[in-house]
Amino acid sequence: MSTKLNHIAIVVEDIDKAIAVYRDAIGLPLTAVNEEPAEAVKVAYFPTATGEVELVQPTTSDSGIAKYLAKKGEGLHHVCLEVDNIEETAGVLTAKGMEVLGEIRTNKRGDRYIFVHPKSAHGVLIELYEPAGRGA
Amino acid sequence: MSTKLNHIAIVVEDIDKAIAVYRDAIGLPLTAVNEEPAEAVKVAYFPTATGEVELVQPTTSDSGIAKYLAKKGEGLHHVCLEVDNIEETAGVLTAKGMEVLGEIRTNKRGDRYIFVHPKSAHGVLIELYEPAGRGA
Repeated sequence: MSTKLNHIAIVVEDIDKAIAVYRDAIGLPLTAVNEEPAEAVKVAYFPTATGEVELVQPTTSDSGIAKYLAKKGEGLHHVCLEVDNIEETAGVLTAKGMEVLGEIRTNKRGDRYIFVHPKSAHGVLIELYEPAGRGA
Repeated sequence: MSTKLNHIAIVVEDIDKAIAVYRDAIGLPLTAVNEEPAEAVKVAYFPTATGEVELVQPTTSDSGIAKYLAKKGEGLHHVCLEVDNIEETAGVLTAKGMEVLGEIRTNKRGDRYIFVHPKSAHGVLIELYEPAGRGA
């Protein structure tokens, strides 16, 4: 296995104010700010040589992430770990009694992903991610 | 500037139980588990090709991180961003009215670091880090 850190996602109330900190003050390289209507968020992407930082602002008030922000406030939302074979990893987790959230899903690019509940990962919402074209 | 993601640190109650998740189930590469008496923690290091994940267990009940764990529970403790020139970055943050915690400190290897208060970084405790031998 060669699991690695893919990205971390920080939920924020105002993406422009957050960019002023993470790009303008701290110097992270911003490459794009995209609306993602399917997820009801706006995302700022800061890819670095060693993993990506994402700032995520909800664009509606009724999505899961909007409710998370309302309840918990700004801060880390999830950590994404890239795995070789997502079925295998999700299967191992389930066999060990850990809780994954729903089924493995596929995005428009063909990447597959599933989330692990924070209570099964020592308080961190973990996204498992297998890029398109890898795996079985 | 070429700021990049250096590591994320997750505070846990029992490092062996957490290793069973992050190494044995998810497949992150564990290279060492070290006692760090100066910080009153035990740390498990999982360096990946794209940044490191660290699990951190307090070894006393009266350290800052032990109190954090008691108050907030397990989960992300901080995100470390590696910068080219820590004086410059800390100076920019301060000039913009953001709060850094204390002074720039130096560890045994000569690396320098300082923390940014979560209220100044949209809810995330940020460690700024400049490896030894870089900078002015």
